[in-house]
Formats: sequence, structure tokens, C-alpha cells
Amino acid sequence: MKPIEKELTGKHLIGGKYCGAGGRFRGIDPAAGTELPTAFCEAGGAEVNCALELADEAFEILQTVPVKKIAGLLERIAAGLEAGSAAIIERAQLETALPAERLRSELARTAGQARAFAELALDGSWAQARIDHAIPGRKPLPKPDIRTIFMGAGPVVVFGASNFPLAISVAGTDTVAAFAARCPVVAKGHPAHPGTCELVARVIAEAIVWAKLPPGMFSLLQSSGYEAGLALVKHPLTAAVAFTGSLKGGRALFDAAAARPAPIPLYAEMGSVNPVFILPGAAAARAEGIAEGFVRSLNTGVGQFCTNPGMVLAVAGPAYERFLTAVCKNASCIPPAAMLHAGIQKAYDCGTERLSSIPGVKLAGTALGGASRGAGPKMAVCKIFTADAALLRRRPELSEEVFGPATVIYRCKNTAQMLEIARNMPGSLTATIHGTESELREQGGLVRALQRKAGRIVFNGFPTGLEPCASLHHGGPYPATTHSFFTSVGTAAIYRYVRPVCFQGFPDAALPEELRETNPRRVRRLVDNSLK
Amino acid sequence: MKPIEKELTGKHLIGGKYCGAGGRFRGIDPAAGTELPTAFCEAGGAEVNCALELADEAFEILQTVPVKKIAGLLERIAAGLEAGSAAIIERAQLETALPAERLRSELARTAGQARAFAELALDGSWAQARIDHAIPGRKPLPKPDIRTIFMGAGPVVVFGASNFPLAISVAGTDTVAAFAARCPVVAKGHPAHPGTCELVARVIAEAIVWAKLPPGMFSLLQSSGYEAGLALVKHPLTAAVAFTGSLKGGRALFDAAAARPAPIPLYAEMGSVNPVFILPGAAAARAEGIAEGFVRSLNTGVGQFCTNPGMVLAVAGPAYERFLTAVCKNASCIPPAAMLHAGIQKAYDCGTERLSSIPGVKLAGTALGGASRGAGPKMAVCKIFTADAALLRRRPELSEEVFGPATVIYRCKNTAQMLEIARNMPGSLTATIHGTESELREQGGLVRALQRKAGRIVFNGFPTGLEPCASLHHGGPYPATTHSFFTSVGTAAIYRYVRPVCFQGFPDAALPEELRETNPRRVRRLVDNSLK
Repeated sequence: MKPIEKELTGKHLIGGKYCGAGGRFRGIDPAAGTELPTAFCEAGGAEVNCALELADEAFEILQTVPVKKIAGLLERIAAGLEAGSAAIIERAQLETALPAERLRSELARTAGQARAFAELALDGSWAQARIDHAIPGRKPLPKPDIRTIFMGAGPVVVFGASNFPLAISVAGTDTVAAFAARCPVVAKGHPAHPGTCELVARVIAEAIVWAKLPPGMFSLLQSSGYEAGLALVKHPLTAAVAFTGSLKGGRALFDAAAARPAPIPLYAEMGSVNPVFILPGAAAARAEGIAEGFVRSLNTGVGQFCTNPGMVLAVAGPAYERFLTAVCKNASCIPPAAMLHAGIQKAYDCGTERLSSIPGVKLAGTALGGASRGAGPKMAVCKIFTADAALLRRRPELSEEVFGPATVIYRCKNTAQMLEIARNMPGSLTATIHGTESELREQGGLVRALQRKAGRIVFNGFPTGLEPCASLHHGGPYPATTHSFFTSVGTAAIYRYVRPVCFQGFPDAALPEELRETNPRRVRRLVDNSLK
Repeated sequence: MKPIEKELTGKHLIGGKYCGAGGRFRGIDPAAGTELPTAFCEAGGAEVNCALELADEAFEILQTVPVKKIAGLLERIAAGLEAGSAAIIERAQLETALPAERLRSELARTAGQARAFAELALDGSWAQARIDHAIPGRKPLPKPDIRTIFMGAGPVVVFGASNFPLAISVAGTDTVAAFAARCPVVAKGHPAHPGTCELVARVIAEAIVWAKLPPGMFSLLQSSGYEAGLALVKHPLTAAVAFTGSLKGGRALFDAAAARPAPIPLYAEMGSVNPVFILPGAAAARAEGIAEGFVRSLNTGVGQFCTNPGMVLAVAGPAYERFLTAVCKNASCIPPAAMLHAGIQKAYDCGTERLSSIPGVKLAGTALGGASRGAGPKMAVCKIFTADAALLRRRPELSEEVFGPATVIYRCKNTAQMLEIARNMPGSLTATIHGTESELREQGGLVRALQRKAGRIVFNGFPTGLEPCASLHHGGPYPATTHSFFTSVGTAAIYRYVRPVCFQGFPDAALPEELRETNPRRVRRLVDNSLK
């Protein structure tokens, strides 16, 4: 398989055709603070409309395509990403300042996700076919034949994240999940990595041609502002929207989706504070080990992970002091690093300044010489703050996420105070508990409190580093997401883009294959209340 | 089992205790237009707060209760409804003017639903436990142990419907589904049947005491206005809301839920126009038979069903004329009947008047002498309108639901025009096709168009008369519901009230039973990607 052409056009890619003229914005090298070659077009209403009309036409075609073609497309996208990896990683590195090694593993994960959804589509059991056979002689009324299956909801709009330019962007989980559900995708390119978006979109468009699928099933629109995104959310043909990014951006789009004449689901994953609870036994037994793992987790990807641990709760005492000392020591060795773009860097600086300015919050540790490093633009410096846990109740803004390698370590009086904090905190993607097994048994109340507040609870581990498998849930109560039922990573992400369709009294031949009596695709089904 | 005390208090029932003073509103006998005995209290902020705080406390307790107790509660509610059926039906008949026979079968359905959820809870497979085992030696990174299961989301607020005072009200699907998911419920009584609400709430409260479950898991708040309902939706402890009723009411609550500082899902089922497509072959073969079944469906419950067929599309020609003649003949035999309450009657009168006033819409048939029937208050008269199908495009208000026994029969030029209308209509709970099997094959495009527009597609049947089984989907794209993924009837309704919780690296004993290695509850699980 030939790698994709690496020359950038700066144009949109709408239904397989490059279009647009007059580049208006450029990618920025965040490490150097300089503009990169190639100016990108700004999508307007015409492009939004064109992309969604093509998507709408493609949707109907996709409903009749053999599943093997859908799976073939996803496999081809995976292979295309791998074949084009040199050009994609080169550009992504320029646009994001992420290390090549990290981007290589992210590309591998992205290809792996596409293959996982190919497998899911081929298997077909995800669609949860349900059948209730007719009972014509039932009294007082006959029971009709009723069969239901999840089917694609319609054209999907995808807003990728800046922090995962491959795995949660143009060919990320949202796009391949929507394809697996036979839904077309209109991706809005992230303005922090527009060139990467174009190269990845090219891989998808070429795979669609190769698979002989309708080119309208995919478009990439480039845009540096808010208008194009809002227009995509408000367009009457859009059936669902995926967004990964900031609370402010996600909430604005959620509000727009809810205010439509016909509201649509907007699945936003907006990150969270991801609290870490260190129980006394664990702290006493391995304060230094936890500290080391914690600082590594805090600084993964320069702290730019949705699951970054921004809050630690531990019980005051000698073990707490050992933990704090070890955290500060580890943090002092973390070299400052460029963030994804100037906006994130600015938000990090403001956020950490805001923390510093709260009476009772103390800067306890930071990267050595970080602030004084003179060369290049500003860089993010890992910062460790401490505070008394009682402060959390008085200053609710402490529960807001500061995106980047900063954390606050709270001294709790005891585990009862920990529990009270857990019960009153906002929603998070994750919560982590470090403890001995007997402590975990004793702290059943803490686990139950966290079940209400987090999508994933990690025991004796760290929240960063997602395993995109069938069992993963990457979601959580607001503000982590706008709907905690759904996940944005893992194969269960397909449920964002489907809805049940129920067929009553249909002749067998007119039913979707999965619902036919002979079950030609051999999918798992719930038949007359028993799983078969 | 002793039947419940039938004497009404007019009070709220909050966490097992009657409270409130000073009755402010009364039930109305809609057939006679007169006030019924017993004045009911109006819930205010204090009652809302008290009910939700109790619910919140109960939620945590419910997480640790053996599933047998939950199932026992649901069985007991079913038995209590049956034991109390005389008093409940007597009062419901007074408040709704629905015939005793209909209420008896609705009570049986309501008890059946409670039992179905008891079975679902006991079985446990609904929770879709998923397990990915750890692979400690995996390269480049070890795979952690990840396990996910659906768990209750928190306190649920239920707004019942006026048209199903038992099956979709205080002890309807929403309440028993929430209980099965271990969620407490605060029900807002429907002001059109407050006495029925009190009696049913009494059954639930007694069952909770019998099952030794926390009384705070259920409250009934009476209210005749909007404020209490809005306060319930806006309360920070509310995790999800179910509403069945009008588009106006549902949309107002949806907007309030979306505008909260922390938005919550508001699952509104708001009815729809439920189009019926009659293909030429079916019309030619059995115009009279379809007409008879159609008029029966149109008048079920005085047309007050969410799935009432308010729109018919048929191809002009001799078969169309035969169909129309037969519809009008059948309709002329339908006696006028009292609607559920004066508000619904008024909306029906306005709606049919609005239809009549549209140029091109003609009243073709009605109940004989209906309008002139003098005795008692106003009654609903079945009305059959006709129009040219081309009018639908010019007058989009024709696609809005008129709640009651009225329908518009549209003459189409051909099936191509039918298809075009299907593609452009708003969402519906159901769509119905009458056709021969070969017509259905030829009209694959129509089926695909309807898959996008309706939650349930009925072939050669009628949309009214729900079968509340596992395969039923009672939902659909907006305005039928606010989220087409979820259903309000059938056992799949449980998914409204749950969210996935993911456990990573947990010791076996600390996991929910369904996720433990030995699978003590023997639930169906997805283990390492295979269903077991």
C-alpha cells in the first residue's frame, strides 16, 4: 500500500473533493512559537451545508451496504494510517510539540481502534438484536411479532481534541465508531493541528474510494473560529455530535444542540479533576512508590490528558509528609515542556496563578529552574500545591480542572473527611483509590460515593493511560461529560451514534439480516427474553 | 393481602409520611364537569427539597440491598395494585372518564410491568457486565483488569401521563424501571388524577415498608401548576427525569434540565403524528378491512394514545375512494366521548378547528350527530379530514399532532410522492405500512426513510396497543422524544436510569457481585470480547 501524498493543500475535503480557496490561518509550532507553512481555508455556511447534504445522501446508501465493506473500510483506514505514518507524525510533531515516540504509539492506538471497530461491525452482536415472537392465540389479545435492533442515527459531526491529534481527532474513536454504525461523518478539523487533520482525512477519503463506498460519507472542514462549528451543530441534517475539549467549548455546543428546534444529542467529553484518594495504610506502606507513579501520571503528555490527576486527598501525618516530600522531589526532576498550543499554555498559567492566589493554597514544589528557563516561548512547569481539605468546601473553584501538569494535595483530618469530600465533589471521568485490600473493605462508603461521581474507579493505579477495550468506560457525570451513559473511548462508543428501530409484524425477508429467523449473521440475540 | 385504605388524605406522601396542609385543588369528573371530593395540597420548594434529600440518602442504601429485596418490592407493588384495584379503578374512573374495563386491563398491565422488572432485576443480565482481564506481561504496556457494569444513576423524578393514569403514572414503567435500577423515585402527581395518584402511592409506600426498604426511596408530590415540576427538574440532587405528556410541557422541562448548572437527561415522550402509509396493492385488496381497523385504532381511548394515527397517506384512485368511504362510514358509528380533562378537550377543539381552517383541508366524515349532542359537558367527536398530499410541504403545521380522535387522509399522486413525504416528515413514535409483501420489497426506500423517522414500524397492523416486552421500543426522533436512544415502555426502559461504572484493578471481593470472577449471580457477561 502506497503512503498518502504528504503535500498539504490547506483546503477542505468534502465528499472526496478538495475545495475552498484563500487560506486564512496557519498551524503554529508551539515549541518555537512560529507559523508553519500552508495556509488553511475557513469553512462557512456553504461548506457546512454541502458536507451535510452529501452525508445525508450517503447515510441512506450506507444502510444497504454489506457489512464486509464497512469492515473493509475500517481496516483500510488502519492500514492507510500506518502506511502514511511518516508524513502524519512529522506534521503532527510540528503542530503539537508532542514527542515522535508518543505520536507513534498514538498512531498505533488509532489504527488499533479502527481495527477493533471493524471486528465489532463484522461480529454484529453489538447491535443487541431483540426478538419477541408472536403469540397469535394469546388472550385477551394476540401478541404481535416484535423485533428491535440498534441502527445508525444519521450524519454525525465530530470535533476532535487537541491533546490526542490522532486517537481523538479526524480518524479517532468517534469517526470509526460512527462508520461502524453506518453513519457518515463530518469532521471539524482542530485549528491546532490542521495539517495533521488534512493528512488523516486524505487517508480516510482514499480508503472510501478503495472500498467503493459513497464519498459523501466523510468530509473534513477546516476552521479556526467558532462559527463553522456552531453551524455544524445547528444544521437540521446533523443527527448527533461528538466533542472532546474544554468545558467552555463543550458547554457552548451542548447549549446550541439543546436549543435547536429539534434538539440532538451532543456528547461532549470535557475532562475533569480526577481525584486521587490515598488511604492511610497505603500511604504508610508505600508513600514513595505512589508519589513516583503519581508524578509520572501527572506529567504524561505535559499534563494534557483528560484523566490527569488534578487533586489528591491524603490524611495528615508522617506518611502524608513522606508522600509530599517524594512528590516534590519527583516533580523537581520534570523538565518544563511546550504545551499543545498558546491557548492551552495561557489557560494553564492563569489556572495555576488562580490557585496560588487562593489564601491557604501553597506552592509546595515545582520543576527546578523551570520558570527561569529562558530559551523559546513559555513552557509548562509542573506545579505541586498543597491546601487543607476544609478549604475545598469554602472555595468550590478548587474543584475546577486546571488543564496541565498541576495538582493540589489536600491534607484531610481523617478518612471521614475524605468521604465527605467525595460525596460533595462534582463529576469526574475517573477517581483513584490507593489503599490496602482491608482498607478498601472498610471504606465501602467511599467506593459507593465515588460510583456516583466518576465513570471509572481505579484501585492502586493511576488514571492516565486508557485501555480502549470493550470494558472501558470513558465518561462520567457532568462536567466530565454531557451524558454519563455514553463513552468516548472503547468499542462501546458505538452507542453514541445509534438508536433502536423496532419492526412489528414484518415479513422475514424485509427485516434487517440480524433480525431474520435463521440469523444468517449468527449474532447474539435476546429471543423471547433469553440470550441466544 | 389486604387492600389499601381507600380514604383520600389529599396530602403528599413523602418518604412514607403523609404531609402538607390546606388542600388547594380538586380532581374533576371530566364526564360531568364537576369537582370531586377531597382537596389536594400544592407542593412547594420545601416538599421538593425534603423528597429529594430523602431520595438521595435512600439511593446509597439501595446500592447495598440484596437484589431479592428489590424484586420482592416490585412483586409486592404488583400484588398491592391488584388487591387495591377496586378502590383504584373506582377513583380513576371518576377522574379520567375512562371505562372500567379499560382501567382494569391497564391495571393488569401495570402490575405485569412491575413483575417484568422484578424478573429483570433478579436475572441481572440487563446490566451488561463487561470484563477485560489483565494481561500483566503485555508489551509495550501491561493491560490492566477492567470491568464495567450499569448501575443506578441517582434519584429519578417521574412525571406521569394523563392518558395512562396507571401504566404511565405513579407506579408506571418509569417508577418500576427506576426501582429495578436501585434508584429512588420522586413522582409528581398528575393534577388530572390526583386521587388515583394518592392511592397508587399508598400501594408503593406500603410495599416499601413490607420489604423493609428505605421509605425515602419513594415520594409523591401533588401539584396542579408548573412550579413544583420545574423545581423538581432543577433540584441539584435529581439525576434524571421522565416525562410523558405534551410537546409544550416536555420541551419546557427539557429546556430547564439542559439549562441547569449541571445538565441532566430529561427523557420526554411527547407523542407524535404516527403516519400510516397505505400502498396501492393493499388498498385494492382490502380497503374496507384497513378502514375498519384504522378507525378502531384512531378511537382507542378516545384517540388519547401517544401512538394514535393522525395522518394517512394513500394513492388517489378507486381504492383510495373505497378506503375513504369506509373510514367515514365507520367513523359515523363512533359515539362522542368525554376526554381526560377539559384542557385536552380544549386543545382537541382548537386543533381540529385549526385543521378545518387550512385551505385545502376538508372535513370528510364525523360521528353522526356528534356535535349536536346536548347533554353534559363537551365531548370529543371523531373527525376525518382529507387533503391533497402536496399541501403537507406548504403547510408544515399539518405534521403537528392533534391529540384526540382526528386524522387527515392525504391523497398522494403515487408512491414516489409518499416516499418524498416520508423523507421530509418530523420524527414519530411509530410509522405504519399497509402493503402486500411484494410491495414492501419494492418500497425498500420507504422502509429505510421510515427507519430514520420512527421508533417502531408496523406492517399490516395498527400503531396503538403497545406490547410492553423486551423487544418493544417506544421512542423515536424529536418531537416524539427528547432522546431517541431510550424507550419509555418495555423492559429496556431501565437504561434511562443507569450509567456505566468502570472498575479498574479492583480486588474481586470489592467488586459488585455481577463482576466477580466466579459470577455468583450467573449473569450474562461480555468477557474478553465474548459473550458468556
